[in-house]
Amino acid sequence: MPGVIVDVALFCHIRDLSFGLPRLNRSAALALIVQKFGGTSIGTVDLIQAAAERTIAARDAGHQVVVVLSAMGDTTDRLLELARQITPRAAPRELDMLLTSGEQVSISLMCMALHRREVPARSYLGSQVPILTDAVHGKAQIRDVGCERLFADLDAGLVPVVAGFQGADEHGNVTSFGRGGSDTTAVALAAALEAAECQILSDVDGIYTTDPRVVPTARRMERVTFEEILEMSSLGSRVLQRRAVEFAGKYNVPLRVLSATVDGPGTLISYEAPELEGPVVSGIAFNRDEAEITIAGVPDRPGIAHAILAPVAEARIEVDMIVLNAPRGGRVDLSFTVHRSDFEETLSLVDGAVGGRDLSTEILGNARVAKISVVGVGMRSHAGIAAKMFQALAGEGINVRMIATSEIKISVLVEERYLELGVRCLHEAFELDRVKSPG
Amino acid sequence: MPGVIVDVALFCHIRDLSFGLPRLNRSAALALIVQKFGGTSIGTVDLIQAAAERTIAARDAGHQVVVVLSAMGDTTDRLLELARQITPRAAPRELDMLLTSGEQVSISLMCMALHRREVPARSYLGSQVPILTDAVHGKAQIRDVGCERLFADLDAGLVPVVAGFQGADEHGNVTSFGRGGSDTTAVALAAALEAAECQILSDVDGIYTTDPRVVPTARRMERVTFEEILEMSSLGSRVLQRRAVEFAGKYNVPLRVLSATVDGPGTLISYEAPELEGPVVSGIAFNRDEAEITIAGVPDRPGIAHAILAPVAEARIEVDMIVLNAPRGGRVDLSFTVHRSDFEETLSLVDGAVGGRDLSTEILGNARVAKISVVGVGMRSHAGIAAKMFQALAGEGINVRMIATSEIKISVLVEERYLELGVRCLHEAFELDRVKSPG
Repeated sequence: MPGVIVDVALFCHIRDLSFGLPRLNRSAALALIVQKFGGTSIGTVDLIQAAAERTIAARDAGHQVVVVLSAMGDTTDRLLELARQITPRAAPRELDMLLTSGEQVSISLMCMALHRREVPARSYLGSQVPILTDAVHGKAQIRDVGCERLFADLDAGLVPVVAGFQGADEHGNVTSFGRGGSDTTAVALAAALEAAECQILSDVDGIYTTDPRVVPTARRMERVTFEEILEMSSLGSRVLQRRAVEFAGKYNVPLRVLSATVDGPGTLISYEAPELEGPVVSGIAFNRDEAEITIAGVPDRPGIAHAILAPVAEARIEVDMIVLNAPRGGRVDLSFTVHRSDFEETLSLVDGAVGGRDLSTEILGNARVAKISVVGVGMRSHAGIAAKMFQALAGEGINVRMIATSEIKISVLVEERYLELGVRCLHEAFELDRVKSPG
Repeated sequence: MPGVIVDVALFCHIRDLSFGLPRLNRSAALALIVQKFGGTSIGTVDLIQAAAERTIAARDAGHQVVVVLSAMGDTTDRLLELARQITPRAAPRELDMLLTSGEQVSISLMCMALHRREVPARSYLGSQVPILTDAVHGKAQIRDVGCERLFADLDAGLVPVVAGFQGADEHGNVTSFGRGGSDTTAVALAAALEAAECQILSDVDGIYTTDPRVVPTARRMERVTFEEILEMSSLGSRVLQRRAVEFAGKYNVPLRVLSATVDGPGTLISYEAPELEGPVVSGIAFNRDEAEITIAGVPDRPGIAHAILAPVAEARIEVDMIVLNAPRGGRVDLSFTVHRSDFEETLSLVDGAVGGRDLSTEILGNARVAKISVVGVGMRSHAGIAAKMFQALAGEGINVRMIATSEIKISVLVEERYLELGVRCLHEAFELDRVKSPG
């Protein structure tokens, strides 16, 4: 240590976890857990004090704890608003400099709250850990995590309190991982420190079969697999940052989503399926903020999809669903979806890539679409699931615009106004409101 | 570079300055100036925009500019209040971590404001410059300033925007210079970069013969010497941080105090006296926040003053006036003054040093005293000035509790309630409201 994360293969993993906190592995002295508190969970001084009590409870239970914090409450939004008042297009490097000040406040106050309770603690900025990243401001990727200072603190009985969301490039420039990046920090530290569990404490008490605001009968899942949650988070369950889950899955860091204020087991995310004969569909995910772009009448030549999508990828815009229909008359239609906030930029990039070259090519866009997905590792027959899915949607008069499938999910794109109705009818069709008895 | 500041002797100094901005030294390509904006001058987004315009005006006039910023408006106070809500005695390391987030916000927003005006700029935290300090949190001292990145930026036509108040120790821990520490940053950078002038832009348009709120006829001084301003700032004129002025004097960095919003020449602080035959007294300084401690009946033994004051010095408490009267009956009275905020701590330190050793020793304290000083490099005869001073004070019935003299100042300690009256009568006695004709 520090070792390049992607080269570290032998991360220890304590599998026999009880709910709430990992059971001690008797061969190890102590179980190490990472606790990450989200912004709403530390939005006030009183909440910071409550979070400190949570950390102390874990410590009193015999665990070593590393704390990772987001910025307090709406700090990030307030800072963004200041930037917006100055310029609509702030330089990413300066935005990172601005926004990372938020976690700096959280970590110092948290340490003060721990000190007041006579628990030794020390705060660390991303650059101090250090969390080394590439130089892509606003969307930086982690290259290396130094563990020496944290291990030294843990050995000395201290609680290291680390600023989430941030790192530094090789020249010491402050970088950020983008929205929700504190989850990434927590998981990266859990992986590098070989923690037994990475806890994500927030204002939700777990992960539900779908959004309870849309379907009141939605149930909290006790356990869910990385594969399932990846599909769900990428589709908009918004409980966890997608990259953090990928990271956790890659390094087999058990993740637990739980409430920062209410006791409870939360939802454990690991590689184990809940039951061998579990339900076919585990949950319904959806994403309201989709935008659809179709390039109609593209000449059917090898590499044409790449030519169109390459500039989009270079701009680091995430493309989600991609559909290319069978050629007709030497031409194809290429459709894909992006996050709604990337819609305008994507349109202009696509326009630059195909515009002017071929007058019969037409670019169409629709920023008012939404995606609904049924997800489940138990899903074996796409055909059966798909049939049931389309039947349910058709029963409500909902037209399906695009379809995409993966190993454990089927997604459909619908007009945004049908989103809630679609989610409700699918939740009911797959009987997700009923607790299944195992096997 | 980076070279240890205290070892760098050959800082270039362009002496023939015009008011407002330094005249270009024709043998040098460009004059480099450091502009430091105080918190009230960048308290809102609009003020930051105005500050950016000031920087651009200097740049358009042909200067290279390095900007140093404080935290916006009352940010520091708000952060301190958050800390106070958690604990009355926050650890200095964590307080530094907390407070230094304030300048981080300022520098990024300032860069955005410059970018918007198409002026390339780049922000730097103290740790990024780097400004290396010792590890005394809250009162750190600068050990080294790295200039390479700043010079590279200046050569490339960029405006480096540096966070004031902060640095980092050899382990990368964030440190601060204490209240007003942004002045220290500005002067240290001006010295290290061999700047032609260090401008302190704030809500005052210069340095006055005394506080205009106390004496309405107080005049702005065109020029004042380092020696004079040092006596004035240490005595409470509160325009500049004392350490910054010492630093500026040591490395002969011309300092200019001027308004951030109103055009004007401000007050230039340099080594030259205003006129060869200038006024005897240049200004009246005062400090409201004094506290007096007397240890009465101390055995008159060698080293006794040291034994009492050493623990105070070790706690980094600044002792100002020290008076030891002639021994009487083998015992002396030792009196000294400290800043009022250090009063309680000093009392307990002194108690620890002398208490219990000798029952006839008595410790007396008075936290409601104030100091008034007349200052002037033209001061030749202490006796004459002192006589005039005591006559004026006696005429108002003001009792003098302690007296201290230096080469260019005479200070008296009075009860705080007499402060304003004393300053007014001295300002009048030395005719400071009248502009003197040179020579």
